[in-house]
Amino acid sequence: MASSSSSDSSAPQSPQLRKDSVTNRWVIFSPARAKRPSDFKSKSPINPNQQHQQQCPFCIGHEHECAPEIFRVPPDNPDWKLRVIQNLYPALSRDIPAAEEGNNSDSGRVVVNGFGFHDVVIETPVHSVQLSDLSPREIGEVLVAHTRRIKQLMSYDSIKYVQVFKNHGASAGASMSHSHSQIMALPVVPPAVATRLGSMKEYFDQTGKCSVCESNSKDLLIDVSAHFISIVPFAATFPFEMWIIPLDHSSHFHELDSEKAVELGGLLKLVLRKMSMQLNNPPFNFMVQTSPLGDNASQLPYSHWFMQIVPQLSVVAGFEMGTGCYINPVFPEDAAKVLREVKVSPLE
Amino acid sequence: MASSSSSDSSAPQSPQLRKDSVTNRWVIFSPARAKRPSDFKSKSPINPNQQHQQQCPFCIGHEHECAPEIFRVPPDNPDWKLRVIQNLYPALSRDIPAAEEGNNSDSGRVVVNGFGFHDVVIETPVHSVQLSDLSPREIGEVLVAHTRRIKQLMSYDSIKYVQVFKNHGASAGASMSHSHSQIMALPVVPPAVATRLGSMKEYFDQTGKCSVCESNSKDLLIDVSAHFISIVPFAATFPFEMWIIPLDHSSHFHELDSEKAVELGGLLKLVLRKMSMQLNNPPFNFMVQTSPLGDNASQLPYSHWFMQIVPQLSVVAGFEMGTGCYINPVFPEDAAKVLREVKVSPLE
Repeated sequence: MASSSSSDSSAPQSPQLRKDSVTNRWVIFSPARAKRPSDFKSKSPINPNQQHQQQCPFCIGHEHECAPEIFRVPPDNPDWKLRVIQNLYPALSRDIPAAEEGNNSDSGRVVVNGFGFHDVVIETPVHSVQLSDLSPREIGEVLVAHTRRIKQLMSYDSIKYVQVFKNHGASAGASMSHSHSQIMALPVVPPAVATRLGSMKEYFDQTGKCSVCESNSKDLLIDVSAHFISIVPFAATFPFEMWIIPLDHSSHFHELDSEKAVELGGLLKLVLRKMSMQLNNPPFNFMVQTSPLGDNASQLPYSHWFMQIVPQLSVVAGFEMGTGCYINPVFPEDAAKVLREVKVSPLE
Repeated sequence: MASSSSSDSSAPQSPQLRKDSVTNRWVIFSPARAKRPSDFKSKSPINPNQQHQQQCPFCIGHEHECAPEIFRVPPDNPDWKLRVIQNLYPALSRDIPAAEEGNNSDSGRVVVNGFGFHDVVIETPVHSVQLSDLSPREIGEVLVAHTRRIKQLMSYDSIKYVQVFKNHGASAGASMSHSHSQIMALPVVPPAVATRLGSMKEYFDQTGKCSVCESNSKDLLIDVSAHFISIVPFAATFPFEMWIIPLDHSSHFHELDSEKAVELGGLLKLVLRKMSMQLNNPPFNFMVQTSPLGDNASQLPYSHWFMQIVPQLSVVAGFEMGTGCYINPVFPEDAAKVLREVKVSPLE
């Protein structure tokens, strides 16, 4: 990979296709289409001044405008730090028969009732505060709220997978500007998860090793803490995509303990601040990539959870929709070098 | 499916998960999140007045500003109707060793040289003319240009798949407003194609029938011509997604003859005009979904090409990126009914 490892070289790089052993997805790295990696900036950064605080139901004091609460931290306290609530417009319904009932499959038409849960985590009582403004301990409390809710949802036999994600910025899919994340509990193991698990299992069967444990390489490293690393994945689907990976092998995000959650909160805060500084405060998504629940809820030697953070810098268009291949103009080694070298001022 | 077939009913519909036998993709239909199907409009329609004609290298007379030409129609004529040219910023390179050479796979890192072709079809010499403004015969000539270029690219042993697609509108990924489509020839069978082929083969092995031939159902039909139908697919990934399907079983788009290309041009024109009228001239993508080349280039009983047209009405966000599941607020039967009933004025 020598030809693709230097962002300072002025020599043109040849395009390259990569497939990594975690996602099993082909990505085309095409530097001819790019500006220099260090010149990437969001064209539509988040503008905090566009927020409309007065009409926000997520703000403290507006709890009655929201769908029912599931829990808050601290409990029973009007001066709450975070709340987990039902989504007012859930994509799935907790009020219809569970997935196994009322389903049918007719001439190739497979139908499952849309049973499931769609919850919202209000990450702060204050409208103008973003996730990266919180302290590592406060971000850790948000992550612990995610794990606590997953453990509640695990009690439903028909819930097969829980997706934790965050959309930040309207063009990244956020309909509310008040900082929040979402938890969706699904009656099926979704296709990208099944593909990832199959790919990780194939790698394990061939090598006896976990493909995520093996992702730790010097050229892709951004930062490191006692139990976590942040990296750019070898076959990053999107420019400046980042993963935070627990160093100790662990299949399920919900087994994160509260002490490590604070450490993870610190590394997530660092990643978000570096992304914001380097890329001009872009809209972004993060997704927790974990393992299925139910019968498969035990530790798996090949499956290792991680957090995926994707700044929104490019458009998914006809080529990607048609092929499932993505074109990334920035080589991961170059993105990692840029992100390693971002200087953030010490806060908190 | 009675509960989901009426767009006029005021009764709330329950969410439903569907997986169809062609794409093998789960889609969550979640009408609670939607306005009425007939109220869907693009919030960022294409504005023809924003085009900058004077500086466009795709306009007639500016041929010297483009990358090299592959062919034009009519040949050797300065008064051309369409041109097929190289992409000035190709995602793949025709100048590096073919895919089989210089590749390696090291500790789960699979790398293939980025050999391939990335061409552009300039669909009209005139900047202000859009694809749907062309006559059925002229659209047919564009489609024949696609098939002719695919047949040229088939001569390369290392080309495994050719993706034909169109991005229309900046937010659908078009960097040029002058009407054009793209042809990308790949050294691998891309993942979405492999998944689609596997899914269609599984259906065929179970039923002895082609899953695309079976897609022809009254409740999903939009329009019909002698040899083609337009439908909304049973598990449409995106709201108002449409497919045009040849009625006669055929595995490869490039086997389309020039007579049927004119008929397909007429149906594509109708679909594009209906979409524009109903949805407020949205940005859109279309993708030709065909079968791999090379050793697999013969007719396959289970694989049937079609054209997928997707108006850009929603954002792909954290949930979709994490799970590969999509949330569609419009039931396909409702979208098909709306599109069936759009009245377009007879032109040409």
